[in-house]
Amino acid sequence: MPMIHIYLYEGRTDDQKRELARAFTDDVQKIVGSEPAATHVLFHDMSKSDWAHAGKLASDE
Amino acid sequence: MPMIHIYLYEGRTDDQKRELARAFTDDVQKIVGSEPAATHVLFHDMSKSDWAHAGKLASDE
Amino acid sequence: MPMIHIYLYEGRTDDQKRELARAFTDDVQKIVGSEPAATHVLFHDMSKSDWAHAGKLASDE
Amino acid sequence: MPMIHIYLYEGRTDDQKRELARAFTDDVQKIVGSEPAATHVLFHDMSKSDWAHAGKLASDE
Amino acid sequence: MPMIHIYLYEGRTDDQKRELARAFTDDVQKIVGSEPAATHVLFHDMSKSDWAHAGKLASDE
Amino acid sequence: MPMIHIYLYEGRTDDQKRELARAFTDDVQKIVGSEPAATHVLFHDMSKSDWAHAGKLASDE
Repeated sequence: MPMIHIYLYEGRTDDQKRELARAFTDDVQKIVGSEPAATHVLFHDMSKSDWAHAGKLASDE
Repeated sequence: MPMIHIYLYEGRTDDQKRELARAFTDDVQKIVGSEPAATHVLFHDMSKSDWAHAGKLASDE
Repeated sequence: MPMIHIYLYEGRTDDQKRELARAFTDDVQKIVGSEPAATHVLFHDMSKSDWAHAGKLASDE
Repeated sequence: MPMIHIYLYEGRTDDQKRELARAFTDDVQKIVGSEPAATHVLFHDMSKSDWAHAGKLASDE
Repeated sequence: MPMIHIYLYEGRTDDQKRELARAFTDDVQKIVGSEPAATHVLFHDMSKSDWAHAGKLASDE
Repeated sequence: MPMIHIYLYEGRTDDQKRELARAFTDDVQKIVGSEPAATHVLFHDMSKSDWAHAGKLASDE
C-alpha cells in the first residue's frame, strides 16, 4: 500500500514518468509515512480519442 | 464527478466513442443533474485475447 | 463486453442508479450493437472527502 | 460477479492468459461458489516503463 | 507485478478472501513464474444495488 | 487529464488526503505541465482484510 493508477494522455516521456513516480512515492512517504517499497505507480497512456470531457472526445477539441 | 471507465472490445470507431460519450454525459445530466463539464469518460480498448468469460478467452470462442 | 465502472458522489439513490444502468445499457446496444446481457455497470460511491479536483478535496469547496 | 482486472507485464502469452483465466474462474467457483459464467477476467498488459515500484520504473531496474 | 483487482458481491468472508488470495497468488506463480511477493490482490466489495447486468440492478433480480 | 486513483489502507485522515491531493496535483503541474484544474484524484480506502500481498491478507500479518 498504496497503489496508484494514473491515467494520462499518451506522449509523456519515460523521463516524465520517472519523475512522477519518484515524486508521488516521496509524497506518500512524507505525508502518510509509507516506506517507498510499499508504493506502486501504474501509468496508463490514453489516446485523446479515448478520453471524453463534457460529452466531447478530447481529440475533437 | 462522475468519472466513467468503459472497457470494450477494440475495433469501436471514434464515431461510436463520440456517440457513447455524448449519450452517457446526457444520461448523467438528465438522471443525476450533473452539468456536462463534470463528466469524464475514459475508453479502454480490449483485445479479445485479453478478456475471459466463464474461464475462456473471448478470442477462443 | 462492455464493462462500465462509474465513480460518483455518494448519495445517488437506487432509483437513479437503476435509471443510469438502463440508459447506459441502451446506449451501448444502440451505438455499438451489444446485446443488453453483455453489459455490466458497477457503481462506486465516493465521499466528497475522497475526491479531489484542482488539488482540493471536494468536501472543502 | 465477480469481475477481475489483472495488471501484468506485457509479454505473457495467450496460453498463459488462457490458463490464468481458467484457474481464477475455477478458484472462484470452488471458494465462493459462483458459476463460471459469472466470472470475467480482464488482462491489462503493462510496459515496464509504465510500472514503478519504490519510486523507480521497472524498466530502470 | 501482477496487480489484481477483484470486484465481488459483499458478504464474502475473510476466510474466502484469504483462500482466494492464496489461490490467485499460487496460480500466478505456477503459470507466469512470478514469486508470491510480487502479487497483490485487492478485494472490492460491491452491494447488489451497485452492480447492474443487462440494464438491471442485481438487487432487483 | 490526468486522472489518479489511489488505493490505500483506511485510516488516513482528511488532512493527509488533502495534502496528498495538493502534492500530486503540484507534481503533475511541475513535471507534465497540466494546469491544476485538469487533475482529479480519487481516494479508495481499503480495509486490511481486503488487501493481500504474497498470498496473505494484510490483516493476517
